[in-house]
Amino acid sequence: MKLYTKTGDKGQTGLVGGRTDKDSLRVESYGTIDELNSFIGLALAELSGQPGFEDLTAELLTIQHELFDCGGDLAIVTERKDYKLTEESVSFLETRIDAYTAEAPELKKFILPGGSKCASLLHIARTITRRAERRVVALMKSEEIHETVLRYLNRLSDYFFAAARVVNARSGIGDVEYERSAIVFRDRNSSES
Amino acid sequence: MKLYTKTGDKGQTGLVGGRTDKDSLRVESYGTIDELNSFIGLALAELSGQPGFEDLTAELLTIQHELFDCGGDLAIVTERKDYKLTEESVSFLETRIDAYTAEAPELKKFILPGGSKCASLLHIARTITRRAERRVVALMKSEEIHETVLRYLNRLSDYFFAAARVVNARSGIGDVEYERSAIVFRDRNSSES
Amino acid sequence: MKLYTKTGDKGQTGLVGGRTDKDSLRVESYGTIDELNSFIGLALAELSGQPGFEDLTAELLTIQHELFDCGGDLAIVTERKDYKLTEESVSFLETRIDAYTAEAPELKKFILPGGSKCASLLHIARTITRRAERRVVALMKSEEIHETVLRYLNRLSDYFFAAARVVNARSGIGDVEYERSAIVFRDRNSSES
Ligand code: B12
Ligand code: B12
Ligand code: B12
Ligand SMILES: C[C@H]1O[C@@H](n2cnc3c(N)ncnc32)[C@H](O)[C@@H]1O
Ligand SMILES: C[C@H]1O[C@@H](n2cnc3c(N)ncnc32)[C@H](O)[C@@H]1O
Ligand SMILES: C[C@H]1O[C@@H](n2cnc3c(N)ncnc32)[C@H](O)[C@@H]1O
Ligand SMILES: [Mg+2]
Ligand SMILES: [Mg+2]
Ligand SMILES: [Mg+2]
Repeated sequence: MKLYTKTGDKGQTGLVGGRTDKDSLRVESYGTIDELNSFIGLALAELSGQPGFEDLTAELLTIQHELFDCGGDLAIVTERKDYKLTEESVSFLETRIDAYTAEAPELKKFILPGGSKCASLLHIARTITRRAERRVVALMKSEEIHETVLRYLNRLSDYFFAAARVVNARSGIGDVEYERSAIVFRDRNSSES
Repeated sequence: MKLYTKTGDKGQTGLVGGRTDKDSLRVESYGTIDELNSFIGLALAELSGQPGFEDLTAELLTIQHELFDCGGDLAIVTERKDYKLTEESVSFLETRIDAYTAEAPELKKFILPGGSKCASLLHIARTITRRAERRVVALMKSEEIHETVLRYLNRLSDYFFAAARVVNARSGIGDVEYERSAIVFRDRNSSES
Repeated sequence: MKLYTKTGDKGQTGLVGGRTDKDSLRVESYGTIDELNSFIGLALAELSGQPGFEDLTAELLTIQHELFDCGGDLAIVTERKDYKLTEESVSFLETRIDAYTAEAPELKKFILPGGSKCASLLHIARTITRRAERRVVALMKSEEIHETVLRYLNRLSDYFFAAARVVNARSGIGDVEYERSAIVFRDRNSSES
């Protein structure tokens, strides 16, 4: 089998059910999700063999599959769309964010992204998730999208934040507070995100 | 020597034979190639000293030089343009993609980007190559470019995919298939890319 | 405390003193700075415990705090703006660039980004800093910004370049010159950057 088909050498490419320019917001969106997915692969490689992170490891693997669901859902332009990503995947992230937030030390101020290699990679994944969210928001302004993808990405960056903190806590590493931070984290019933 | 010249502090910068805004598509294009090149540097650092990857190591080094050719070719705005990147560099990638595809296990479904640290870094390089390709496609719509660069980047992301699979195969790591994947890889005489 | 507030699920989000679309240039700018900050976290994790880099380690930590200053300064849209980033932070970078440039071997041609893992990560930070700079330049065209941020980012990418070279020099690793490079580095009184 030839992996390359050369049909994309002029700047256009295939969707599920159509073709578009490679610099379109749609391709930019799932391309960024693919980039994010690759960084999760690196985080998993870093975690591999380290005891005490079985929950996180299993979750990251699930997330990799779900990000393929997201990418696939964004690549469909046919009339009939069988979206793959479900609201249950969003709720599952919420459950895990709550559990990790409870496990990690109390949080009042911004913390510097870092700590162990694994925690640092989760912070990188967090910020690339946010980049992907920005791209999907841009896409949404001109094209119909599966809105669950947007909620999923919004929650996913919070998941990575909570997970990074737990990884440092379990590793005995204290997060460093941003020295000029106000008290920014608190219970909010309604607020911006 | 002073490394910084402060002449870019107002948002404009120098090209080979001109000046432009730092947020121009041209600067965005070679800036992304520079970012990609830096990730290849990290992959090489990860590979360093590991036996069994002499072919890949030599190729990655060649690719780093060729990406400088790409960046330089995109930075020229003079009348007379002595482009550096050649079609032979594209063909060489094709030869290596075919060899690596033959060496790796048969492929039918999408695989999760990951495996060893080195393979994960190659998947990251793959997705940043695709980001660079998207930027060059955007640039091409408004400015004349050296089209070999586009073909090179299109092939290069397939090269990284094939190489990542071989790294995992040689490391005794099996790639994990995306669990909801259709059969997406097959022999195609003409199709989208 | 619930970390997620769900108020950003529709594509808008909060600033200091306002709200905006998540795909706005402002959010893109500080989001990219957050991504950069996370890669510095990884570089610090890589450096951790390695002797001989106490100066660099302390500086990277300072830079992480200053990048939060940058992000915060870009997030303010209130009438009264108490900017946090100072010109002293820019001058400090210049002092360190000069010191590292003097410490590293003489430089005439472009070098391939790479070397040790730490140096490679600093090259990655260098190129993401340049991406952040491009985003801030785009923002500046439509919105008032704290201009010190722009000078800071311009100098910061040169800092990472000089630091990467010193890390390799101290590690006994020689930087590889780009084989088709002209003599590009020299003393310049005024020139593009
Ligand atoms: C800018 C910003 C960022 C920037 C950071 C800024 C920078 N320097 O680069 C970036 C993009 C990096 C960021 C990241 C994150 N952020 Co943020 N961020 C904000 C934002 C918009 C402003 C924060 C700020 O600097 N405020 C400046 C201070 C001076 O203003 P203030 O907090 O309003 O304080 C004034 C008053 O409220 C009052 N006050 C202060 N403290 C208190 C306390 C009490 C009890 C009371 C009654 C009053 C009070 O006095 C202050 C002075 O006037 C807020 C939203 C908002 N508008 O507040 C979210 C916010 C703080 N972020 C939030 C979150 C979740 C995050 C992330 C976890 C997101 C993610 N998944 O990545 C990360 C964490 C990053 C980290 N490393 O810790 C949430 C926190 C939710 C919560 N439960 O509290 C907020 C509230 C947004 C939201 N509604 O979801 N963020
Ligand atoms: C979306 C997409 C992606 C997304 C993945 C989607 C996601 N979930 O995020 C992203 C961007 C990540 C991606 C990446 C890659 N992709 Co892609 N991708 C596609 C695309 C557009 C759709 C694939 C898909 O999901 N199809 C959904 C299924 C249901 O549709 P279908 O395959 O058309 O199947 C229908 C029929 O064809 C039929 N059918 C199915 N199987 C078979 C088998 C036979 C024998 C027959 C006769 C019929 C048949 O039944 C199906 C149901 O109706 C295809 C192009 C295309 N339009 O097919 C390329 C395609 C599969 N990708 C390709 C490649 C090369 C890649 C990359 C290697 C590129 C790279 N260098 O990074 C990577 C590999 C990623 C990985 N980790 O494995 C090539 C494969 C070439 C080949 N020789 O087969 C394709 C065909 C594009 C091309 N022409 O070059 N991709
Ligand atoms: C394109 C470019 C890049 C590209 C690289 C190109 C690529 N292949 O991808 C990228 C974006 C990667 C890049 C990165 C960097 N760059 Co740059 N880059 C340039 C640029 C615009 C062109 C360089 C080039 O290729 N020239 C092609 C040759 C053929 O042209 P030339 O140098 O003008 O040479 C002609 C004449 O000047 C003369 N000549 C040549 N040598 C000499 C020597 C002497 C003594 C004299 C009198 C005449 C002379 O003959 C040549 C043929 O006609 C120059 C600015 C400029 N316009 O020169 C900056 C420039 C070389 N870069 C600079 C810097 C600082 C960097 C970075 C460190 C920035 C950073 N922080 O990341 C990195 C270093 C990267 C690395 N790995 O080494 C500075 C160097 C400052 C200095 N003190 O010399 C320059 C001068 C820009 C500036 N004013 O700040 N760069
Ligand atoms: C915590 C803060 O992060 C900002 N914010 C919200 N979503 C994103 C995103 N996708 N990318 C970057 N920044 C974002 C908002 O300003 C929010 O209040
Ligand atoms: C394999 C699939 O990847 C998508 N594709 C093709 N080129 C790019 C790129 N530069 N960036 C992101 N996605 C791309 C197309 O949808 C193609 O069919
Ligand atoms: C060294 C060369 O890098 C380019 N340059 C200057 N600023 C940036 C940036 N933010 N991103 C990418 N490239 C940049 C200019 O072409 C300069 O001359
Ligand atoms: Mg959010
Ligand atoms: Mg392609
Ligand atoms: Mg500069």
